[in-house]
Amino acid sequence: MRWSDGFIAVDWGTTNRRAYAIGPGGARLGEMEDDLGILSVPKGGFPEAVAAIRDRLGYLPMLLAGMIGSNRGWIEAPYVPCPAGADELARAIHWVEPERLGIVPGVSWTEHEQADVMRGEEVQLFGAVASNMVGPVATVCHPGTHNKWVRLEGGRILGFRTVMTGEIFNLLREHSILADLLAEPARPGDSFAAGVQRGFAENDLIADLFSVRARALLGKEEGVEAASYTSGLLIGADLAIGLRFAWHGEIVIMGRPELTELYAAALALARRETRVVDGEQAFVAGAIHLAERLQ
Amino acid sequence: MRWSDGFIAVDWGTTNRRAYAIGPGGARLGEMEDDLGILSVPKGGFPEAVAAIRDRLGYLPMLLAGMIGSNRGWIEAPYVPCPAGADELARAIHWVEPERLGIVPGVSWTEHEQADVMRGEEVQLFGAVASNMVGPVATVCHPGTHNKWVRLEGGRILGFRTVMTGEIFNLLREHSILADLLAEPARPGDSFAAGVQRGFAENDLIADLFSVRARALLGKEEGVEAASYTSGLLIGADLAIGLRFAWHGEIVIMGRPELTELYAAALALARRETRVVDGEQAFVAGAIHLAERLQ
Repeated sequence: MRWSDGFIAVDWGTTNRRAYAIGPGGARLGEMEDDLGILSVPKGGFPEAVAAIRDRLGYLPMLLAGMIGSNRGWIEAPYVPCPAGADELARAIHWVEPERLGIVPGVSWTEHEQADVMRGEEVQLFGAVASNMVGPVATVCHPGTHNKWVRLEGGRILGFRTVMTGEIFNLLREHSILADLLAEPARPGDSFAAGVQRGFAENDLIADLFSVRARALLGKEEGVEAASYTSGLLIGADLAIGLRFAWHGEIVIMGRPELTELYAAALALARRETRVVDGEQAFVAGAIHLAERLQ
Repeated sequence: MRWSDGFIAVDWGTTNRRAYAIGPGGARLGEMEDDLGILSVPKGGFPEAVAAIRDRLGYLPMLLAGMIGSNRGWIEAPYVPCPAGADELARAIHWVEPERLGIVPGVSWTEHEQADVMRGEEVQLFGAVASNMVGPVATVCHPGTHNKWVRLEGGRILGFRTVMTGEIFNLLREHSILADLLAEPARPGDSFAAGVQRGFAENDLIADLFSVRARALLGKEEGVEAASYTSGLLIGADLAIGLRFAWHGEIVIMGRPELTELYAAALALARRETRVVDGEQAFVAGAIHLAERLQ
């Protein structure tokens, strides 16, 4: 059986996994999603967790990408250093079953004292380039728990920076002195825009966050939605970092719609034109692009 | 009985309280400290919690300062707006027992969309001025769960900014993806200095925090103490905010020794001369200064 006859691609993250059965010509034959992320698989349980996917989607060759290849996952697949393209990635696949079950590595970037890592986004990035969702020279903004700003050139990853925006927002919402002010979901609108503008222009993030609480205590909210404003402060600071790091080519926002919407609104406030690309489609395109290198 | 014959001053915070019995001429007659912060006192339990202090230190007039006067404390004592001095603070004391048991208000600052609040630090600030620990024109850096940068002029608080440095560090250490890297205590040294220099010079805090994890994953720590480096990143960013906000007069660092030591080291790296003042002594001096206004 050859990869072009069909295979299964799995985006296996920390808290959930999505698997796609892909047939000849890239047809999607089936898919599944559940919350069996790497943290939910018991020690030694990965062979069984993989078998369950094949029981459901067919006994096909498999490519596993994402946190499954991390030091908290099944088997660690060492990072491929930048500059990295699909060819380097395909060559570095860690084979659990020879040519039948491979773990896709992540990508690393180092420069002086800076260091960064990604796992999972690289498949989406190469897929987006291969399917012309993104031009070969672009800045990609990939929001998530951690946002990634990625420099692409010649369709390869030159470098990238991770910003802890989503995780910091979640920490503030769940555990901080701001928690009771941040219960509502963040949404684009005037409060979000005010936060973005301040977060982007000033460098006072860890002070401005406290002002959210102070304004509430002093009764000065005046219709400000605290969660949207706070999300805006963080995303504004995130944009300032990302645009300094990666401002060349077009800006493409890739990811889940609820996050790409906020980043698109924020980048519009920073007067940057953007295009939004669906991360799931890009992942499937990337898996196909990698599989073509495995014939 | 008059205040000059003796009184009890209580610094009543969120998680603990310290009470001092102060006699004629400012002599310390006794003191106590326990973990009965406002969050540990049951609803309706404050009269009893106050009586327990008097049982221990004497049936004297009392001044209660700190979070006891917040909306999570016993009775809310509204903030005194800046510019604020000891006179304004004394006049705004909320009397629970007329002239016998008073709750000292906090101080607020607003300017355009900025807003800020403090509770407890103001007593230390006025005490430090009254006892010449701080000159009348100064910038005070008051580290804690939240660091306060305070502009003093004529011995009054002109304005201040709160930076969530300590709380963010605790959130990262207890709940974030960096948690397992931050178990050791932060201490001044090369790692701390490297963090301060980067945090002070760059504006990439929420990206640089992730690089702590990336460097560990890539085996690039090279003897870097992650907790000290991370603390340095945060304190460096804190200094950049504070010195932009409050750079005039001498810089005085006030608070608990384990924190003032880190801030003194960081400010030395930023080439600023500082003096360190003990927060507890300043609190007692401030309480005496207020009591003198109550005769």
